[in-house]
Amino acid sequence: VEERFAELKRRLAEIDDLHMAARLAAWDQQVTMPPGGAAARAEQLATLNRIAHEKFVDEAVGRLLEELGPWEASLARDSDEASLIRVSRQDWQKATRVPAELAAEQARVHSESMQAWAVARANADYAAFRPWLDRVLEVKHRYIACFESAADPYDIVLDDFERDMPTADVRRLFGRLKPVLTELAAAATDEVQSWEAGPWPRDPQYAISLEVIRAFGADERSFRLDPTVHPFCTNFSTNDVRLTTRYGEKSFHGTSLFSTIHEAGHGLYEHGVSPTLERTPLRSGCSSALHESQSRLWENVIGRSLPFWRWLGPRMESHFPGVLAGVGAERMHRAANRVRRSHIRVDADEITYGLHVILRFELEQQLLFGGLSTAHLPDAWNTAFEETLGLAVPDDAHGCLQDVHWSLGLFGYFPTYQIGNVLSVQIWDRLLAGVPDADERIEGGDFAAIHAWLRDNLYVLGRKFTPSETIERVVGGPIDPEPYIGYLRGKVAALG
Amino acid sequence: VEERFAELKRRLAEIDDLHMAARLAAWDQQVTMPPGGAAARAEQLATLNRIAHEKFVDEAVGRLLEELGPWEASLARDSDEASLIRVSRQDWQKATRVPAELAAEQARVHSESMQAWAVARANADYAAFRPWLDRVLEVKHRYIACFESAADPYDIVLDDFERDMPTADVRRLFGRLKPVLTELAAAATDEVQSWEAGPWPRDPQYAISLEVIRAFGADERSFRLDPTVHPFCTNFSTNDVRLTTRYGEKSFHGTSLFSTIHEAGHGLYEHGVSPTLERTPLRSGCSSALHESQSRLWENVIGRSLPFWRWLGPRMESHFPGVLAGVGAERMHRAANRVRRSHIRVDADEITYGLHVILRFELEQQLLFGGLSTAHLPDAWNTAFEETLGLAVPDDAHGCLQDVHWSLGLFGYFPTYQIGNVLSVQIWDRLLAGVPDADERIEGGDFAAIHAWLRDNLYVLGRKFTPSETIERVVGGPIDPEPYIGYLRGKVAALG
Repeated sequence: VEERFAELKRRLAEIDDLHMAARLAAWDQQVTMPPGGAAARAEQLATLNRIAHEKFVDEAVGRLLEELGPWEASLARDSDEASLIRVSRQDWQKATRVPAELAAEQARVHSESMQAWAVARANADYAAFRPWLDRVLEVKHRYIACFESAADPYDIVLDDFERDMPTADVRRLFGRLKPVLTELAAAATDEVQSWEAGPWPRDPQYAISLEVIRAFGADERSFRLDPTVHPFCTNFSTNDVRLTTRYGEKSFHGTSLFSTIHEAGHGLYEHGVSPTLERTPLRSGCSSALHESQSRLWENVIGRSLPFWRWLGPRMESHFPGVLAGVGAERMHRAANRVRRSHIRVDADEITYGLHVILRFELEQQLLFGGLSTAHLPDAWNTAFEETLGLAVPDDAHGCLQDVHWSLGLFGYFPTYQIGNVLSVQIWDRLLAGVPDADERIEGGDFAAIHAWLRDNLYVLGRKFTPSETIERVVGGPIDPEPYIGYLRGKVAALG
Repeated sequence: VEERFAELKRRLAEIDDLHMAARLAAWDQQVTMPPGGAAARAEQLATLNRIAHEKFVDEAVGRLLEELGPWEASLARDSDEASLIRVSRQDWQKATRVPAELAAEQARVHSESMQAWAVARANADYAAFRPWLDRVLEVKHRYIACFESAADPYDIVLDDFERDMPTADVRRLFGRLKPVLTELAAAATDEVQSWEAGPWPRDPQYAISLEVIRAFGADERSFRLDPTVHPFCTNFSTNDVRLTTRYGEKSFHGTSLFSTIHEAGHGLYEHGVSPTLERTPLRSGCSSALHESQSRLWENVIGRSLPFWRWLGPRMESHFPGVLAGVGAERMHRAANRVRRSHIRVDADEITYGLHVILRFELEQQLLFGGLSTAHLPDAWNTAFEETLGLAVPDDAHGCLQDVHWSLGLFGYFPTYQIGNVLSVQIWDRLLAGVPDADERIEGGDFAAIHAWLRDNLYVLGRKFTPSETIERVVGGPIDPEPYIGYLRGKVAALG
């Protein structure tokens, strides 16, 4: 048995190495690669992913997982060993359902469709993108057909990002949130303080962003921060985390600060996974929503709080002395939290953000299963957007073309953003029980106890348990929107 | 037949993709990786190299190569197709001679030995490194034993860097060079001009280095330049070339200029290989010596020439106005070419460089096959060094510990540096027949015709032919030391 388990681990470690090499190739492509390298890089990525996939769906892996069943049953369920066998078996069963040709076809369609989307968005030309969206939907339906039918067909796409989460739960959650968010969005304002226009030079943006994430615990031994067009976080081991950000020079909200904190939240999660899970498929955050809960916890719950701005304000002023002289922490905090109606999800404040997400969740279900033709997507989007956010959509680049996700077939992803927001407040409330003086610590710039609590209670678990098991362990119960609603109401009242 | 050839190309392309992913992982390790990533990176590199090796030595590859023999014979020898089959067969026969366990053992010993060497060199502590050198020699002998005995046992290690080159040829070449270099080294001087001490700030070093290599043809579409500790060049396709350099701030010779030009020479070679050879094992420079001929041609034959300094001098002055005001191109050219006796090979001038190399060539033969015990290596080195260069060796860090090569088992590599120097002048003389106004072009900063001649006559060939075939094609005959000797004599006379 031990030999078989060692053999399983050896195979999974090799597959993990290939995945990490592919992640590095993708990071390099977006951060450092000269443009001439694109064609060869696409081949290299395809080869790495194909070999990793082939090695995983190998029947020998399935046989080992089966043979290890009795041993697994004899182990504690939460042991690393039992978890590795259990989760790998689920992954294997899912991966072997999808024929290699379909997986390759999906990769090809998504890659080409994404390029078509980028051009279409730049030209606000939905008609040019529509045939690609049709192809993406067609291969997605073939993908869905690989699985046993679920209570709700959307369960199958959601499962790719939130294992075992029923669509019905998301619908219930969003049903509770939508009227509250709509009500709170009435606090939206067009107010802008004059200092927000900057100028915000790049070097001090880099310096203050780095200072903040270093204070959070993103140390130089394991983290780097590079510029990119679309910020993201990736990692190639728990001790090699790559954060990326962008440096807008024209507005306070466009500086690298919030985007860097957001990505650092993702990075701290990956960095905190137990070293015993390195080179296994458990060596990463549990799910998209739990990942987002951490990026949003650091970005919003901490990074837009008044104690945080009392700490950061004077530091900001020393980095941007011309712009911020005399502004003070309270006004910076106010600008960081202002509710405003806008067309673009990634620019949205905490209140309206959820409305942007719920709209996408509803439309993608209609596109996939509700008979909404791609021909009518812009109309459907624009109507829903005006109903929800109260703004007319000037063109599709500010409407249904704004996000890359659908071009990549990432249906089921959007709701996890908002579930993450909800979870971030549940987790924070639980953290306050363990670190009751968290606010004072933040105001003093001491994030060690906060980081340690999150690491010891969440990050360390990696992908050992399902999202719902993990949530249960961290917050002592299921997802609950009420703490989040209370948090948002409190914010709006305090800023009112 | 065409299906079989397509299958061979498919397999070789996949292997090339894996090698390129490994190269990227190695580049990243030296240029961008945070230190915490080291342990996981070693595993990732081992996995990529192991899978690439396994896929290459696969019997199916050998079978395809055998089955394609008759078709190969029907093709023109210099066609891409025949060359791919021929060279791949040679590579396959060589690779399959070495058992996988020995290859793995070599990789492990070299990796550990290199780390031991780095510590030993830092402490000038040869005794700490000696047991590792013994292990490296032991596995090297096991490697040599995998091959049929050769006329000279050194032929087998030399073949890893210069396919088909007999050691006897190198000995004859170095026998001709050694007395000439010794004679010319009498021109050595301790003269230093006061401006050489700088200061040489980093930003203008980067700017002028980039300006020079862009003028050579290392365009931003396909090349990047990053800082590192030990400069090197690598690439992940013909259009994704990574140059690295270092920025010494205390002396003219320590600036990034010459090291950047050197690496750019390697990079232009890789960049110029025919695109039809992309994703095949022919997609790289032909041999170590031919590669070095290009780094040294751009660095020395062009980069230390008077026409070059007439072009570069005013540009240098505008980047370093304080230091270089009134110095003038002639004095910079003189400083760039000064003959001086020094302990460290990589700091040596063009005259003494060859003596450093010849000493290593002689000692490594004695270590491997001549009964020189590692216990006596420092004594043997120091005695030979004082005889050859006329300098006492103060400690082993300035003696036999200075280079990384032996720790990595790279016996057979050193001579290729000096063969490259010899070839660089032969190639330049031939180039002058095609580009007779090369000197005027250099003085005008126009390197396009020079780059094009090198690309069309050498770079484009990649690894299609053996080194001797390639040399024959480019210069119309075998290696010949006389043009190089004439070039060095001319330099010493002109500067005298």
